[in-house]
Amino acid sequence: MAKKWVYFFGAGKADGSAQMRDLLGGKGANLAEMTRIGLPVPPGFTITTEVCATYVRRKKSYPKELLPQVKEAIARLESMTGKRFGDVRNPLLVSVRSGARESMPGMMDTILNLGLNDQTVQALARRSGNPRFAWDSYRRFIQMYGDVVMGVQAEGRDAHEPFEEILGALKREARVERDTDLTEGNLAELVARYKQLIKRRTGPRAVEFPQDPRKQLWGAIGAVFESWNNDRAIVYRRKYNIPHEWGTAVNVQTMVFGNLGDTSGTGVAFTRDPATGRKEFYGEYLINAQGEDVVSGVRTPTPIADLRRQIPKAHAELERVRRLLERHFKEMQDFEFTIEDNKVYMLQTRTAKRTGLAAVRIAVDMVEEKLIDWKKAVARVPADSLSHLLAPVFDRKDRQEAEGAGRLLCRGLAAGPGAASGKVVFNAEDAASMANRGERVLLVRIETTPEDLRGMIAAEGILTARGGVSSHAALVARQMGKVCVCGAQDLHIDVGERLMRVKGHTVREGESISIDGTSGEVFLGSVKTAPSEVVQVLIHKTLDPKRSDTYRQFTTLMGWADRLRRLKVRTNADQPDQAANAIAFGAEGIGLCRTEHMFFGGDRIDAVREMILAETGEARRKALEKLLPYQREDFVGIFRVMKGLPVTIRTLDPPLHEFLPNDGEVMRELAEKLKIPYQKIAARVAQLHEANPMLGHRGCRLGVSYPEITQMQARAIFEAAAQVRKEGIRVHPEIMIPLVGFPTELKLQLEIIHRMAAEVQARTRQKVEYTVGTMIEIPRAALVADQIAADAEFFSFGTNDLTQTVLGMSRDDSGSFLPTYLEHEIIRTNPFASVDQTGVGKLMKLAVEGGRSVRPNLKVGICGEHGGDPSSVEFCHQLDLDYVSCSPFRVPVARLAAAQAALKEKNA
Amino acid sequence: MAKKWVYFFGAGKADGSAQMRDLLGGKGANLAEMTRIGLPVPPGFTITTEVCATYVRRKKSYPKELLPQVKEAIARLESMTGKRFGDVRNPLLVSVRSGARESMPGMMDTILNLGLNDQTVQALARRSGNPRFAWDSYRRFIQMYGDVVMGVQAEGRDAHEPFEEILGALKREARVERDTDLTEGNLAELVARYKQLIKRRTGPRAVEFPQDPRKQLWGAIGAVFESWNNDRAIVYRRKYNIPHEWGTAVNVQTMVFGNLGDTSGTGVAFTRDPATGRKEFYGEYLINAQGEDVVSGVRTPTPIADLRRQIPKAHAELERVRRLLERHFKEMQDFEFTIEDNKVYMLQTRTAKRTGLAAVRIAVDMVEEKLIDWKKAVARVPADSLSHLLAPVFDRKDRQEAEGAGRLLCRGLAAGPGAASGKVVFNAEDAASMANRGERVLLVRIETTPEDLRGMIAAEGILTARGGVSSHAALVARQMGKVCVCGAQDLHIDVGERLMRVKGHTVREGESISIDGTSGEVFLGSVKTAPSEVVQVLIHKTLDPKRSDTYRQFTTLMGWADRLRRLKVRTNADQPDQAANAIAFGAEGIGLCRTEHMFFGGDRIDAVREMILAETGEARRKALEKLLPYQREDFVGIFRVMKGLPVTIRTLDPPLHEFLPNDGEVMRELAEKLKIPYQKIAARVAQLHEANPMLGHRGCRLGVSYPEITQMQARAIFEAAAQVRKEGIRVHPEIMIPLVGFPTELKLQLEIIHRMAAEVQARTRQKVEYTVGTMIEIPRAALVADQIAADAEFFSFGTNDLTQTVLGMSRDDSGSFLPTYLEHEIIRTNPFASVDQTGVGKLMKLAVEGGRSVRPNLKVGICGEHGGDPSSVEFCHQLDLDYVSCSPFRVPVARLAAAQAALKEKNA
Repeated sequence: MAKKWVYFFGAGKADGSAQMRDLLGGKGANLAEMTRIGLPVPPGFTITTEVCATYVRRKKSYPKELLPQVKEAIARLESMTGKRFGDVRNPLLVSVRSGARESMPGMMDTILNLGLNDQTVQALARRSGNPRFAWDSYRRFIQMYGDVVMGVQAEGRDAHEPFEEILGALKREARVERDTDLTEGNLAELVARYKQLIKRRTGPRAVEFPQDPRKQLWGAIGAVFESWNNDRAIVYRRKYNIPHEWGTAVNVQTMVFGNLGDTSGTGVAFTRDPATGRKEFYGEYLINAQGEDVVSGVRTPTPIADLRRQIPKAHAELERVRRLLERHFKEMQDFEFTIEDNKVYMLQTRTAKRTGLAAVRIAVDMVEEKLIDWKKAVARVPADSLSHLLAPVFDRKDRQEAEGAGRLLCRGLAAGPGAASGKVVFNAEDAASMANRGERVLLVRIETTPEDLRGMIAAEGILTARGGVSSHAALVARQMGKVCVCGAQDLHIDVGERLMRVKGHTVREGESISIDGTSGEVFLGSVKTAPSEVVQVLIHKTLDPKRSDTYRQFTTLMGWADRLRRLKVRTNADQPDQAANAIAFGAEGIGLCRTEHMFFGGDRIDAVREMILAETGEARRKALEKLLPYQREDFVGIFRVMKGLPVTIRTLDPPLHEFLPNDGEVMRELAEKLKIPYQKIAARVAQLHEANPMLGHRGCRLGVSYPEITQMQARAIFEAAAQVRKEGIRVHPEIMIPLVGFPTELKLQLEIIHRMAAEVQARTRQKVEYTVGTMIEIPRAALVADQIAADAEFFSFGTNDLTQTVLGMSRDDSGSFLPTYLEHEIIRTNPFASVDQTGVGKLMKLAVEGGRSVRPNLKVGICGEHGGDPSSVEFCHQLDLDYVSCSPFRVPVARLAAAQAALKEKNA
Repeated sequence: MAKKWVYFFGAGKADGSAQMRDLLGGKGANLAEMTRIGLPVPPGFTITTEVCATYVRRKKSYPKELLPQVKEAIARLESMTGKRFGDVRNPLLVSVRSGARESMPGMMDTILNLGLNDQTVQALARRSGNPRFAWDSYRRFIQMYGDVVMGVQAEGRDAHEPFEEILGALKREARVERDTDLTEGNLAELVARYKQLIKRRTGPRAVEFPQDPRKQLWGAIGAVFESWNNDRAIVYRRKYNIPHEWGTAVNVQTMVFGNLGDTSGTGVAFTRDPATGRKEFYGEYLINAQGEDVVSGVRTPTPIADLRRQIPKAHAELERVRRLLERHFKEMQDFEFTIEDNKVYMLQTRTAKRTGLAAVRIAVDMVEEKLIDWKKAVARVPADSLSHLLAPVFDRKDRQEAEGAGRLLCRGLAAGPGAASGKVVFNAEDAASMANRGERVLLVRIETTPEDLRGMIAAEGILTARGGVSSHAALVARQMGKVCVCGAQDLHIDVGERLMRVKGHTVREGESISIDGTSGEVFLGSVKTAPSEVVQVLIHKTLDPKRSDTYRQFTTLMGWADRLRRLKVRTNADQPDQAANAIAFGAEGIGLCRTEHMFFGGDRIDAVREMILAETGEARRKALEKLLPYQREDFVGIFRVMKGLPVTIRTLDPPLHEFLPNDGEVMRELAEKLKIPYQKIAARVAQLHEANPMLGHRGCRLGVSYPEITQMQARAIFEAAAQVRKEGIRVHPEIMIPLVGFPTELKLQLEIIHRMAAEVQARTRQKVEYTVGTMIEIPRAALVADQIAADAEFFSFGTNDLTQTVLGMSRDDSGSFLPTYLEHEIIRTNPFASVDQTGVGKLMKLAVEGGRSVRPNLKVGICGEHGGDPSSVEFCHQLDLDYVSCSPFRVPVARLAAAQAALKEKNA
């Protein structure tokens, strides 16, 4: 039997189902599923993703069985609807849409009203009794088809421009404001002009717009498959790690019309509020419009609640659909519908994107509603999205002042919660390049399109003048966790002049504004931000936990996560306040306390510099004596806060030149202060200069060269520990030696530490439990982990440096080629953000195995930046590490990611 | 039964044998062996190296069975000689010497005449009938014992000073020139003054020189064991990789006296000439002297040939000994003897150190003499020593001119062949520090001591005023392969004034001189050097091979080596002349041709800079077009020379900023030349600056970012190949992609290369066999070797960068801590000179296994500097690599090392 390439759905029955999303794409699978559960879905068929893969592989040719299978499906459609392709009395019209395995909103091209031509448009006019509608449909079809299939596009930044230009001109000629005011005659004229444009713009071949519906169909199918490899789709897949080989399906579906008049319309709805997660019917619609009008943001739609008044029957049906969808899918859905003459048709449903705030609320609520169990709730919240709950909002007082000062420019739709300030930029490229230079920017656009993606990624927030809460800007911003205000209609943007006018104010590119994606407010200038509810409760204690739903949901979810996870979560903190924050977020210890951060500030840096400039061990020891009390006090503060939780303290790591000034003026001041000749300082600075400081005289190499440094640090740790113990507080320091590559390095440092421990304990008569371990941050350490574990009581992966050395790639210098590497898919994700599991990870595995072969209960953790990255946390779980350590605000993310890793393992 | 700690030898019988050198040390084992084969060895016993190990481990206490065993050995000695310890009529006198498993010349302390005291000296005077001899022996004993056992030493640089000072003062009082002119009375006075010195210099305890011979003996034994851990011994072991745990044995042996008058003497001889390897009896002696006088270089001894005239009987006996030793040991021996009243006694024999020149000649000669087989000859020549055969000699013409200009200062003894020029330095510390700054220095000393070792290592050559061809300076220099002239008696060195006077010339520190260690000549100023015989034959073709014995021996040995080795040997060469040299030395291909070296010089660098400054791909391609003909010509030249041997060409590797000027002036010139604003150049230089260039935008990252570079290089290679093939010469390019870490990097570069290959082959109609492979020089490449081998047709280890990344250690910056690391024994050898087998080696093993798991016949080589290091070559053999590649002059070393590795494997 020939392979099945085409899956039919219609009249309550379907070849496919929701389980077949790999084959049918998300849209196709759910159209089939909706058909099966009795929802009103216009009949149609899906061409599988396998065809796309074949099409790409075979350089644009189809499997030979496809043609007859499509033919047969069309025949079934014709018989089911009683319409026929190209029939001059009752023509069949279809939409052709893409649909990949993972939703890629706005990424792919869509064609509506396919089947219309100079004959069938007349039939449609007759049958609908609405010639204006027929001609409007025809001109829309030609516009989409011309753009997507025939490649008639603007060369510049704004797509659709040539067709829009003709439309605009005609509107001016007809002296009308809105598209809907164009008459049937106007539209017929538009069709003629569009066809001329196509002929003119298809080069010397001067191709005519095709009149044969079958030819139209195959053109559209090919264009969808082509669109899989357009630039914006590739950028999107790269950002979301969607494999290029998956391919898209093509959905061909009988047209229904939202533009048949005032009892017709089209809309997008969410079963809950995707911004807040509240259980409220949420969405918007346009009367007398086709679907693309809503999503593209060209017209600003009406909130769904108004539909109850406008078309009550349709509203009631949609409420029924909403309940049915959630009961069936047990997930928040985002669905598209069309109302054709009071009757609702479902065009799509899918799991809805949501903000982090919404994700947490919905997961917790659905458990309470008994829709899902608590483990599913844990699995469902993307760990990264927790950071939205900790993101800042506007400071109330500063916001009030800004409003009082008349700086509240306008309001738009609250589309991506959080608050952000930044410099206004009016196009995506500039936003990306300014952000690259370290500026905080807000991308301001009339509306966004997929071409703006890079700029949106780079910006702190997004503000649009047009488009609703389900516009491209809103959808993408919510998914990325960006602050977003959209549809701020008072904005008048002049992209050419690089400015916008808002109620008499003119804001030029580079000036600062502030937006609140929770309230929709837009302010002139910067407005101070304030902590989120969760942060107010946990860190600032300025909010009563009972008064915060968000906090309650957050702790509920975290509690479930903690029941599941095996990995401990620690934090990287150098100061008592950071440590306290991390504990509030659930940290179970400090995984990395960098002692060098304590070396800066005030008199300390002078003593540090004196130490570096010392020429004898004696002089060095004298300078170190001055540092000792500071270091001790730092540790006392941290030990007190940590109350017996483990504190991993790393001995001095950076190369000494980092502590010396490079600037001549500062060197001169230092010379005067320390009463040392300037030349001597300059000479020492020059002497300490390194060709590759990352691979230079740093880490334990310093402690080996200058054992008195390690000695001072060890003494400070043990004296601090003794002092805090005397106060009745338990203390558990874990001393960590950085950059170890050779077992003897560790031995030499160990000896100093044990000697100081013994000395301080004897002197203070306080017994301190401590361990000494090592970072694994250069490949050699991983390779000889068995030898190192003979002495090391714990390992901690320093994946920042390990990544740099394993990849032979300096993080600071990789900016010049990493973008190219991501573009060419040499790497899938930035290895400094997410552990390179194939390379670095293999070495980590060797290190864990090597270490535990000698010391089976060896404690192993990770303290690089990767400790707060969910996929890296999952990898650490798989490696059977004991803990991950990350910055305080990433602790909840790591807790949830650890729980999800455990869950995934159990389910595997 | 108690463990045996003491091994006796005497009267033709011995407990030990030559096989027991681990236990008895080299000296002890050979004393036993000589005793067994009937050579005249004074009886004695050896305390084993195990006692030393115990002594060190137990913090200076002996195994309890040692005392009775020594007691018993003494008793046997007494009964065998009829003498008794402390006997006032016939006292037993012994020497106490160290003797480790590996010879460590001059490293350890020795004590002679032990057993003498205020009573026994009288007995010795009576029995010898030579009171002067007895008192001379006594004063020597006190001097040595005071120095070595009681620690009476100079605080400054010159050892022995306090005793020598007293001796000098007495000689001045007695108005005599030489020690031998001192009378019995003078010597008795000297003894008294020495004893006072000891009492004075042993601090508040004011210890007396011990009179009890048994107390003397245990003091001496302890001192020998202590000396195992003195600084100079540690330095020596570090340099020669001798494990510290081996320990030394102690040899206690009945004294015989070379200072009994004119029919007595002492000497050191070699069974062949250790400098040239000629089969000539070689050595020197002093009449009326004790052994230390010869080795220490205080007196300049007489060549051994003169002994035939002076003591004919002894000379004849020594000739017999010489023959017997070589027949028995089948190796060149270096032996110490004493003539006591016409009778020869053997005090030591050992395998003689020799120059590279001598090593080759002796190995080849011994095969011809049927003493050894050819495989043993291959095994015996230290591979590194072959470089001596290629080391330069003085240019004949320049030497003649120097002589004509009166610049021949003087002649000394030719002690270490080769020629060297450099700045004069009079002490070892300064030599080391000047050499560290990159200066070429010659160390000039009155005589050298083990304290000078660091300076000798640092110097190009060594010149001494005193001491013979077996002096410390000569022995060490030969072993290190340093140029050495010793015993140049016309030199009058004033260390304090930092100058030397030679026949009216004054040479100050820092002035240049030149020495010829083959002729013994010393020249003022620099003399040009010229190639060695082998180089003249092979490279310059200026010497008829038939006229060079050295060349004949060299090729004979190389021929044998080539029959044994499995590893191929290639060379690193960027230019046709280098490649030709390497082929002359036996290279079987080019393992690394760096294309960037071709980018410098003349107009090329301008085009390179134009390319780097280009702002568009187009402009870059235009600049590259200019480079193409140069690159093509370079490759043509190399392909012609290589005649079908494989040529591994590496695509552009260094970061682009290496090609741009940093200096403002040069940037200005460049701006004018290229008609580009200065600011633009300065901006590009700043933009290309990297924090860690070693880990930056280089290697294939350049080819990925700028594919047109790879394209130009590939085109140049294939066009050159086609051109050379047209000339009827076979060509086999192997294109190598540097710094690959990700499989896709290689894929992208491969695609360009294959495309250019196809294009050029089609255009020129010349088929070129080529392969494309990758360097393995960052850890990730080794870790994902299986993935990379899917596309790579060969691997080549870039162990320079691999060492830097695996160890996280920048070669350029490691100078600030590597010396400390060697000192603390964190590492045993410099990892940039010899592969770190434990760390880097483990990763190499993974890479070979990974690569061959996918491509079983994967060709694997090494092209780092390590390819010419014998121990690294052995490691590569063990890893089953296909070839090593090294600089042209190291090719013979690699060939021999490869043969030895194969031999070792076969014998294992």
